[in-house]
Amino acid sequence: MLGRLNHVALAVPDLATATAAYRDTLGARVTAPQALPEHGVTVVFVDVGNTKIELLEPLGAESPIAAFLEKNPSGGMHHVCYEVDDILAARDQLKTAGARVLGDGNPRTGAHGKPVLFLHPKDFFGTLVELEQA
Amino acid sequence: MLGRLNHVALAVPDLATATAAYRDTLGARVTAPQALPEHGVTVVFVDVGNTKIELLEPLGAESPIAAFLEKNPSGGMHHVCYEVDDILAARDQLKTAGARVLGDGNPRTGAHGKPVLFLHPKDFFGTLVELEQA
Repeated sequence: MLGRLNHVALAVPDLATATAAYRDTLGARVTAPQALPEHGVTVVFVDVGNTKIELLEPLGAESPIAAFLEKNPSGGMHHVCYEVDDILAARDQLKTAGARVLGDGNPRTGAHGKPVLFLHPKDFFGTLVELEQA
Repeated sequence: MLGRLNHVALAVPDLATATAAYRDTLGARVTAPQALPEHGVTVVFVDVGNTKIELLEPLGAESPIAAFLEKNPSGGMHHVCYEVDDILAARDQLKTAGARVLGDGNPRTGAHGKPVLFLHPKDFFGTLVELEQA
């Protein structure tokens, strides 16, 4: 079921500072920031060739990463996203195996316009796992 | 400077349980566990096609991930590792830019038998960054 690593998401308190560090200090290719109000984040993609790093800054009062940054004010590793071929089949297989799907259990449209689900970090050893239909 | 993502390392309290979850629940290809006493970890590699996930369990009393698991008893995302062509050139460039290299500043031999360095998470927004000479 598990396909390639689509991205690793890192929450940062200040996107401009973080983007400058990845671009100038680490010498990576970075995109312009994109505001995704429906996801409560502004995102910059760092292209590392075989996958992407997503730098996430909270956007708006209901940002899903606000609580994480309250606990981790300097920022930190937020989630990993794996690709799957069929997100409904993956969800059903995971639920049968006892894994908990966050929210109402139905895929929603993710930051890349594709269906995504999040799995409970307690079922994956403290790591928040996103699945995206490739 | 920044090359491809070599791996994402996830610290877990129990490697056998975590390996079973990645293999059976997530349907991923996993290796047999390898004890790396000189690194203080036992590791299982999860092959996700474009990169690797490393599941790390502490090994021995001086394990570098023991403190992390004390703070995060369920486990969690521990570090990301990027490849670089020339680790000494990368180190010097990073130090010039003000980034702090952990330890004595000299590369040591990493889990894959190649020279590695770790960068201070405070300089990269709470994320521990490993560099490995590819």
